[in-house]
Amino acid sequence: MISNTAKIRVRYQETDKMGIAYHANYFTWLEVARIELLDYINFPYTELEKQGYFLPVLHCSCSFKKPAKFDDRLSVEVSVQEFRQVRMTLHYIILKDDDCLAEANTTHAFVDSSGSVTRPPKDFVRRIKT
Amino acid sequence: MISNTAKIRVRYQETDKMGIAYHANYFTWLEVARIELLDYINFPYTELEKQGYFLPVLHCSCSFKKPAKFDDRLSVEVSVQEFRQVRMTLHYIILKDDDCLAEANTTHAFVDSSGSVTRPPKDFVRRIKT
Amino acid sequence: MISNTAKIRVRYQETDKMGIAYHANYFTWLEVARIELLDYINFPYTELEKQGYFLPVLHCSCSFKKPAKFDDRLSVEVSVQEFRQVRMTLHYIILKDDDCLAEANTTHAFVDSSGSVTRPPKDFVRRIKT
Amino acid sequence: MISNTAKIRVRYQETDKMGIAYHANYFTWLEVARIELLDYINFPYTELEKQGYFLPVLHCSCSFKKPAKFDDRLSVEVSVQEFRQVRMTLHYIILKDDDCLAEANTTHAFVDSSGSVTRPPKDFVRRIKT
Repeated sequence: MISNTAKIRVRYQETDKMGIAYHANYFTWLEVARIELLDYINFPYTELEKQGYFLPVLHCSCSFKKPAKFDDRLSVEVSVQEFRQVRMTLHYIILKDDDCLAEANTTHAFVDSSGSVTRPPKDFVRRIKT
Repeated sequence: MISNTAKIRVRYQETDKMGIAYHANYFTWLEVARIELLDYINFPYTELEKQGYFLPVLHCSCSFKKPAKFDDRLSVEVSVQEFRQVRMTLHYIILKDDDCLAEANTTHAFVDSSGSVTRPPKDFVRRIKT
Repeated sequence: MISNTAKIRVRYQETDKMGIAYHANYFTWLEVARIELLDYINFPYTELEKQGYFLPVLHCSCSFKKPAKFDDRLSVEVSVQEFRQVRMTLHYIILKDDDCLAEANTTHAFVDSSGSVTRPPKDFVRRIKT
Repeated sequence: MISNTAKIRVRYQETDKMGIAYHANYFTWLEVARIELLDYINFPYTELEKQGYFLPVLHCSCSFKKPAKFDDRLSVEVSVQEFRQVRMTLHYIILKDDDCLAEANTTHAFVDSSGSVTRPPKDFVRRIKT
């Protein structure tokens, strides 16, 4: 299935007093990669929301192998790991040069504006599965 | 006019690699103090929003005198500095024990859900001015 | 093994345009619970760092069942799930009243200031295992 | 004096339940612009820190004219407003297309690793003043 790579530069604000990027911030970088993946399939997240769909996170996890530091230029590779009727799991690898710093997953539900689980637009499914 | 003091404990997430709290996070602490000020006058922010009012920030500033560090217990004293028909300026002093770490201001507009500037509820004004 | 409960009040800053708390922020709340757990056993994290130990996150995960919203008062129950020679896994339940909003884990390594994995102080181990 | 423009894309994480970017996050965008300004003069912030200099924020302020929203592509124009022996004030304009969304300032001290105020490296001054 579809995949894409986003570029991240670690912000000072994202570091902590241990001198490394605070772990929770990696999930924001995953968001950036996710948003750019939807751009890449030409179905931006803003378009999804305009059509009344939201993609809340049901589950997320991250394994940290080596620390990311201030000013590091990272690549976040995202790919669709599983796509079922009303949910989607994405897999991410966070790299610095060829070094894998972290590996992560997020699972999302498709919901409408009332918060009810719903199937995503057919066009979206078609593009994700290409 | 009205004033109140909120207690903050500096989170690890709020520090940066300089070993001190990142400056932008002070504005989140001001938010905590502001929210507790509205609790104190018995007109919580959630009630304001329920009635269709929002309090976006028009201007904010902060002077940093001494750094706040991880695990510091801070007091944020907030007081209403100026209250005009559709806007309000709050003043804040951030203390560690008796030491003033920072001094700040935020100015807010009262707007309705369409984003138009509007007068706040009379009951709110009465309580703020007491 | 040891457990404790921390109180969290959801900040406006922690919400996103979906009107709920952004998922990455839950990990900051877990930090608050973790820090208070170390207070509870009388071996605060600041003391650990003073003695030259750090507790970076090796792995973290969270399952989101119901959204947390602005101003929600949450309880974060944290307990030691597994304690091995140089690492520790904590388990968390995030509750609103009796409603479980999320369940999470974090695994930490004990490292020294050079970043090498090391055994934690004996006194710390004794207190954690009580 | 020197100036530069940074590009920012508003992250979902940076929005709040009002549906707009939370005000404190603008200061992180200013940081991005500041870091890129130092890149531009070929004296990156990492180099400054390597030489034992830090640039803590002494004062910051921001005036918000129109809200920034999720996915907005912003330009942050930064210029050196004032440069004195041990401190520097930067001025920022945050634009969406030709629309000015916000205007801001940050004042920084040059300090050494002990936290004492100190003059910045001569080479740095020369480049900033070019």
